[in-house]
Amino acid sequence: MSARKKKLINKPENILSEMLQGFAAAYADIVRLTENGLIVRRQPKAEGKVGLVIGNGSGHEPAMIGLIGEGLFDVNIPGEIFTAPGPERIVEGIKAADRGAGVLVCVSHHAGDLMNAEMALELCQMEGIANVEIVVLYDDISSAPKGHEPERRGTAGLFFVWKMLGAYAETGASLADCKALAEKVRDNTRSLAMALSAGANPITGEIMFQLPDDEIEIGMGVHGEVGAGRHKLSTADATVDLMLPSIIADLPFVAGDDVLVLLNNSGSLTLMELFILYRRVAERLEDADIRVYKSWIGQYATTQEMSGFAISLCRADDQLKQLWDAPANGAYLKMVSQQS
Amino acid sequence: MSARKKKLINKPENILSEMLQGFAAAYADIVRLTENGLIVRRQPKAEGKVGLVIGNGSGHEPAMIGLIGEGLFDVNIPGEIFTAPGPERIVEGIKAADRGAGVLVCVSHHAGDLMNAEMALELCQMEGIANVEIVVLYDDISSAPKGHEPERRGTAGLFFVWKMLGAYAETGASLADCKALAEKVRDNTRSLAMALSAGANPITGEIMFQLPDDEIEIGMGVHGEVGAGRHKLSTADATVDLMLPSIIADLPFVAGDDVLVLLNNSGSLTLMELFILYRRVAERLEDADIRVYKSWIGQYATTQEMSGFAISLCRADDQLKQLWDAPANGAYLKMVSQQS
Repeated sequence: MSARKKKLINKPENILSEMLQGFAAAYADIVRLTENGLIVRRQPKAEGKVGLVIGNGSGHEPAMIGLIGEGLFDVNIPGEIFTAPGPERIVEGIKAADRGAGVLVCVSHHAGDLMNAEMALELCQMEGIANVEIVVLYDDISSAPKGHEPERRGTAGLFFVWKMLGAYAETGASLADCKALAEKVRDNTRSLAMALSAGANPITGEIMFQLPDDEIEIGMGVHGEVGAGRHKLSTADATVDLMLPSIIADLPFVAGDDVLVLLNNSGSLTLMELFILYRRVAERLEDADIRVYKSWIGQYATTQEMSGFAISLCRADDQLKQLWDAPANGAYLKMVSQQS
Repeated sequence: MSARKKKLINKPENILSEMLQGFAAAYADIVRLTENGLIVRRQPKAEGKVGLVIGNGSGHEPAMIGLIGEGLFDVNIPGEIFTAPGPERIVEGIKAADRGAGVLVCVSHHAGDLMNAEMALELCQMEGIANVEIVVLYDDISSAPKGHEPERRGTAGLFFVWKMLGAYAETGASLADCKALAEKVRDNTRSLAMALSAGANPITGEIMFQLPDDEIEIGMGVHGEVGAGRHKLSTADATVDLMLPSIIADLPFVAGDDVLVLLNNSGSLTLMELFILYRRVAERLEDADIRVYKSWIGQYATTQEMSGFAISLCRADDQLKQLWDAPANGAYLKMVSQQS
């Protein structure tokens, strides 16, 4: 298991700054790295658009730096590795995103992220920056039981929120409407993750957790937080069969629903495996008469080179389908306008 | 090193068919899986467009199934794992792509792929299918010395060819012009790869090669073919410094050149590492007064979960820049029209 202690970095203490410099240099047509370490949209919309801001611990690339751009977010505040950015930095992000129509701070639910965002809001009030709202987002069914949704963690399924909220804000929707839309997508989204093996901390080289050769873990968080339990390693189909029914039952998704599907690669799973897994997901959804509108398979929120994946479903009405299909141009999320 | 023997598959003999079924189901708006196992563009252009065809061994996803679509290729003939498709299957691919304006069969240079494509061409002649050409493509500077370019292997840098040729064929260019354009991009492209550790064969579970914990290999092919030599594991910057000067010297790229840059992730390297590596690439190119027009960083041609990457440079004149920026909509290669 020592292989992935081999990493291509320079000084560990420079990981964050060098990564951001490299990212911003590569995608200079889409983003800009500010002097205070924010990733901001290169060509912000003119006045009148709600600013969309998100902070997050780094180490999950392309989340969220890759989601800044046209039809997506305005500002990302990257924190240290697996560490939420502090309140002062969030305030800087809010200021950078403020174009006079209010700012929505999106929080993927983890204790540190929420606490810091709330403190940032207080700092804003003290500074007289009005018209800032927080929306708390969560999707992981393994982290708290049904009925306790607000205690759940935010994981890969929030990409449905990022994409649709980005498209919605672009239409000139108000701050209150943007917040309501984010909550609507959240309330229609459910996710469950699994892992075959852990990634290593890029600074210490330490493997995050150990799993026996014949076991998998179901339900872990994006930092390797403890999951819903261990199971024997089985086939791709059996793994989907273990995970998907819990996701369907949780919302619940029912016959006749239209859904969007995301299979998120947490790091080093191959696309080959993900396509094989998706095949079973599609088969099971068809059996349940749940119709797939569009799907997404790839690395969206990673945990270094962890090998594993998450299944996320989002129930989509006509409004959400339209927002899904709207053009987007982030470095790692592009949606091409349909040429009919 | 046993972790990645843990794979999420079903029966090994079904990997290819199940993967293709899953892929085609997920991206049904972009591609279609034919009964004879081809991935074809869902909405082919009307008559008069040169058909673009490529076959390849599977196991390198998203290559090439993810490159079928608008502004890209028309037909992919996926072979068994790491095995070129046979001549008869290539003929099937040619027939599927033929819309009356000729068909260009692109070959990423490997002995098996080239031989099978040439045999397919003979079969076409016997069947009276005219107007089919082969173009042989290569970019890996480690596989044959300067002056022997046609003996070199095709690797990740060919993505420059795929993207630009796709855009060019879309304009209605003739078969001869398409072939000349592919050669032009090829002749301006150079690549060099490295690995920290190998991937495992998805069928046998066997690790492709072994590297000591403190060594890297430079110059290997996409199937782990032997490279230009082993070196001690060092920093990201030192690794780029070891690789980039050879690439620059080979064409050579010179002061004042405009280039496109690709950092291809061969599997489980993190984006974090790739951004840190890119930072140094950009720095060194700037030192040499070579100007980066646009960059691309991600998984394009993988070798399962191998951890490593390749640097590819393509010298781009105005024609190539324009073709680069042209819209594209493959499942794993999207280019959004610039809204100025």
